[in-house]
Amino acid sequence: MKLKNLVGERFKERPADCVIDSHALMIRGGYIKYVANGIYSLYPVMKRITRKIENIIREEMDAIDGQEVLFPVALPGSLWEESGRFESVGDELLRFKDRNDSQMVLGMTHEEASVHLVREYGQTYTKYPFMIYQIQTKFRDEARPRAGLIRVREFTMKDAYSFHTSQENLEKYYDLCYHSYHRIFQRCGIPEVIAVSSDSGMMGGSTSHEYMLLTDAGEDSIVICEACDYRANMEAAANVVDNSMSLAEADLEKVYTPHCKTIEDVVNYLDGPLECSCKAVVYQKNSNDDYVIVFLRGDYEVNETKLTNYLGENIHPAEITEESGIVPGFIGPHNLCNGHTVLYDISLKGIENLVCGANEEDYHYKGLNLSRDCSDVKFVDISKIKTGGICPCCGKKTIQVKRGIEVGNIFQLGTKYTKAMNMTYTDADGSVKNPIMGCYGIGVGRLAASVCEAKHDINGPVWPVSIAPWQVHLCCMRIDQEPCKTAADSLYHQLLSAGVEVIYDDRDVRAGAMFADADLLGVPVRVIIGPKNLKNNQAELVTRDKTITKLIGIDHAVDEIQSVINELFAELSRQVSPQVHPLDEEN
Amino acid sequence: MKLKNLVGERFKERPADCVIDSHALMIRGGYIKYVANGIYSLYPVMKRITRKIENIIREEMDAIDGQEVLFPVALPGSLWEESGRFESVGDELLRFKDRNDSQMVLGMTHEEASVHLVREYGQTYTKYPFMIYQIQTKFRDEARPRAGLIRVREFTMKDAYSFHTSQENLEKYYDLCYHSYHRIFQRCGIPEVIAVSSDSGMMGGSTSHEYMLLTDAGEDSIVICEACDYRANMEAAANVVDNSMSLAEADLEKVYTPHCKTIEDVVNYLDGPLECSCKAVVYQKNSNDDYVIVFLRGDYEVNETKLTNYLGENIHPAEITEESGIVPGFIGPHNLCNGHTVLYDISLKGIENLVCGANEEDYHYKGLNLSRDCSDVKFVDISKIKTGGICPCCGKKTIQVKRGIEVGNIFQLGTKYTKAMNMTYTDADGSVKNPIMGCYGIGVGRLAASVCEAKHDINGPVWPVSIAPWQVHLCCMRIDQEPCKTAADSLYHQLLSAGVEVIYDDRDVRAGAMFADADLLGVPVRVIIGPKNLKNNQAELVTRDKTITKLIGIDHAVDEIQSVINELFAELSRQVSPQVHPLDEEN
Repeated sequence: MKLKNLVGERFKERPADCVIDSHALMIRGGYIKYVANGIYSLYPVMKRITRKIENIIREEMDAIDGQEVLFPVALPGSLWEESGRFESVGDELLRFKDRNDSQMVLGMTHEEASVHLVREYGQTYTKYPFMIYQIQTKFRDEARPRAGLIRVREFTMKDAYSFHTSQENLEKYYDLCYHSYHRIFQRCGIPEVIAVSSDSGMMGGSTSHEYMLLTDAGEDSIVICEACDYRANMEAAANVVDNSMSLAEADLEKVYTPHCKTIEDVVNYLDGPLECSCKAVVYQKNSNDDYVIVFLRGDYEVNETKLTNYLGENIHPAEITEESGIVPGFIGPHNLCNGHTVLYDISLKGIENLVCGANEEDYHYKGLNLSRDCSDVKFVDISKIKTGGICPCCGKKTIQVKRGIEVGNIFQLGTKYTKAMNMTYTDADGSVKNPIMGCYGIGVGRLAASVCEAKHDINGPVWPVSIAPWQVHLCCMRIDQEPCKTAADSLYHQLLSAGVEVIYDDRDVRAGAMFADADLLGVPVRVIIGPKNLKNNQAELVTRDKTITKLIGIDHAVDEIQSVINELFAELSRQVSPQVHPLDEEN
Repeated sequence: MKLKNLVGERFKERPADCVIDSHALMIRGGYIKYVANGIYSLYPVMKRITRKIENIIREEMDAIDGQEVLFPVALPGSLWEESGRFESVGDELLRFKDRNDSQMVLGMTHEEASVHLVREYGQTYTKYPFMIYQIQTKFRDEARPRAGLIRVREFTMKDAYSFHTSQENLEKYYDLCYHSYHRIFQRCGIPEVIAVSSDSGMMGGSTSHEYMLLTDAGEDSIVICEACDYRANMEAAANVVDNSMSLAEADLEKVYTPHCKTIEDVVNYLDGPLECSCKAVVYQKNSNDDYVIVFLRGDYEVNETKLTNYLGENIHPAEITEESGIVPGFIGPHNLCNGHTVLYDISLKGIENLVCGANEEDYHYKGLNLSRDCSDVKFVDISKIKTGGICPCCGKKTIQVKRGIEVGNIFQLGTKYTKAMNMTYTDADGSVKNPIMGCYGIGVGRLAASVCEAKHDINGPVWPVSIAPWQVHLCCMRIDQEPCKTAADSLYHQLLSAGVEVIYDDRDVRAGAMFADADLLGVPVRVIIGPKNLKNNQAELVTRDKTITKLIGIDHAVDEIQSVINELFAELSRQVSPQVHPLDEEN
């Protein structure tokens, strides 16, 4: 199509409210338009990109025997009551009433809907395994949408659900899907995405992985071992702490520590190492506001996901009342008031000489030895691992904590949903069982934004050829000069006839404005027809990433352009892992 | 794929709650599953069909320079407040609050969102005309969902919005789209769809058309002239009445009519023709409950859409109180109490001798002459035309009223939305104007169901090859016999390699069960491999509509099958009008 007809505005100034580059470029390039907090409309350029991504995802899902279905966006609340999530999920589940006062929700994920769809179909073991997926709008009422399409409230998602009769079969399929996800990201031009072990959160189940694009713009913390293959997200990463180097045992001694409210104040005042201090962080349970006091080494932070999983219920930062008996700023394990849940993080294990609060205004203890001075001390892992920490896998001090964007996730769900929603099948031996499920998600818009985040320069996105809105951006430099116009018009029509996706800029504007627009659209192959080269019967071809710059003959321009496009595709393909065959070769 | 792996159940019994065939067949064939009132999930078979329909629509929209975009499903209420529809639209607009108590709505149509998207883009006349469209989920909280996918609450819709700088330009584009819509229905296999003039309803604007599939299962009434091209839906059809044959003028006379409550009772009792009676229908305005009394000829019905349009406000059937002074069952124009809105339908015009109520219990008048006996009588068209009525176009008594399903609609919106939402552009002469809009909708699921309604037999749908879930249904009659299995497996793989969409039934089941399933899937070409024909190295080929039945040689089966598929496509193409070029040949 012609650029002058393309709906969407492009402009130069970076919008002030854009914290990450991809967001700024997508606003500046006429890709997306803000409608409400975390809600965007997509302009034609962006829709072209997301359709290509959707088709790649669809091909990969079909290749592992996925069957495309469509679930509703608006679901009856009763389905979510069956699974128990109507109660357990927070405000991100949007609940509303319809005109008949029936309880409804907007689908934020479709485990319930998928079980509902196949509950009757899957009544005998012969129907298994099978996988269904959809590409559909989701709504998740996020408290803090951010960064353009990275964290939104409404988004298009591919979500897949597999059903199995054994854990072993689920695991085989899970591996297949794990591999298929890598292919999807590779085909979209970001082979650098890594899979990390993750916490299953509200989805339930045990094993799960997140696919992470490492970038400082990401909002997730990822734990990577530089010595072995260990990769996990912060929520799931075990913390291993070596306290063998800590101070020698000493007597317990109460010391006056005026104006020392934080653990850093105290160790500074007492001139001890932070690694031999014990700090307290206090929470309250959401259910009944009971206090939960967490003790951990002064230089570690609480991992609230691990804490929530350990407690089996949700918590919030405490508001400490006088009646609680807790003395804020001076909380310690020894002589602590009774009646509260007290937890000791593994970072304290093995230290025989700790500084800690004395549960009395302006006093701390020195020389605390937990096993000597406190009873019932049991250590649990509820802290965050740090860069330089010990790898839980290989044991070396090679942990790096990096930032990343989660571009996909896969879960082994087990029977959480099938059991709750009473989906059963009759096995070969006549016994009645609940099927075992897996689920697999990719956010389409977030994936597009992530590719932009990974592949851009200061002037705009550098789209991989597989998902670029067009393959060729044709610029006519002097549309007011007949030879230029004739040559460019002719090449445009030749490219269209050859089935090349081409955007044609035949506006009468300055070269600077023309190239700025082309940079913002990020089309991989740019072809420029200008008076100077045209005298030699040539046009200029430049790839968006500048790796290829050459003059091509006008007479065989289409062939030359197509061979560059083919080369870009071939280059991308070299990064894609071979396809793995589905479980059942018969299928 | 193999039929045994296809997710979805098929069964024989017609569900009791299905009032139309397409609904019953889609439930029986494993196409759709009921989730909640007017809300369905789509099984893989149905998703394959709707994807093909969506692609046909997309191709036709792109061919008239449409640019695909995506609007949100969840919209801020403020956008609908801008247009005034937040107030004016009834309960079918689902309103809800998000977690921050912001007012939101679920998009049931996207005029507001489209103006929002292009309000900045379209600021100068040089950007016009342009058209944007989306294929997206809509939610309309219908009071009475019915008939499977025919009238639902959640549905996938293609909605398009065009923007113009002159009414003339809009009309040119409207014609283009009018034509394009016919192509869509032709390509989907229902060339019999007709366009009828329609009432614009809540959309605003003047000219509009609905595309109707005529079928007794439809819920709309369509007015068709058998002598000329006149087609309109009931709401929009002008009623023309010829009263030249009515009784001669007579004196006004009050008569005792005990127990005569309806106009039929009265004319029976007085032995007069129903065509010379005047009946009353009473409504109340929604805004203030004021009464509206409509007088019309005894044998006509009120057209409430025309009445609402005439009044410019919504109405409901009246509850008549004693204080109103209205005497139910005996209401007439003469000596009627004051203070109410009184309207005379054109069906009364020219009758000089009417029977009507006397506004007194158990009394009627005979010989009423409206122009003689009543003051301020003005006739308006607020009645429904009837079969056998006079065509408003050619004047012949050739009107037929038929039932139909609305499969699409197109509207000339004018500046209703651009004015309300303050979208302006600067014209060539520097003046600032509101763009003129058109909008164009097609419900994807309803279209699929309509095709099924139009093309089915007692055993299942007969899908047109263009939207059929697969092209070929391959049946292996004796999978337990090695030669059959080998031949069928081989043909299956050959067809897949040749790019033919094939569903393969290699189950060990009876022929009856196999064919019943095949009928329910409605795939156009069926190929049956059985022991008898295989002895002659042959297979049987039967089209779903039985027009082709023949034996084909196994050795060149793929070629023969492909040529039948090609013939089916060619047959369909012969029903498709040629493509018309877009407005601007330059584009």
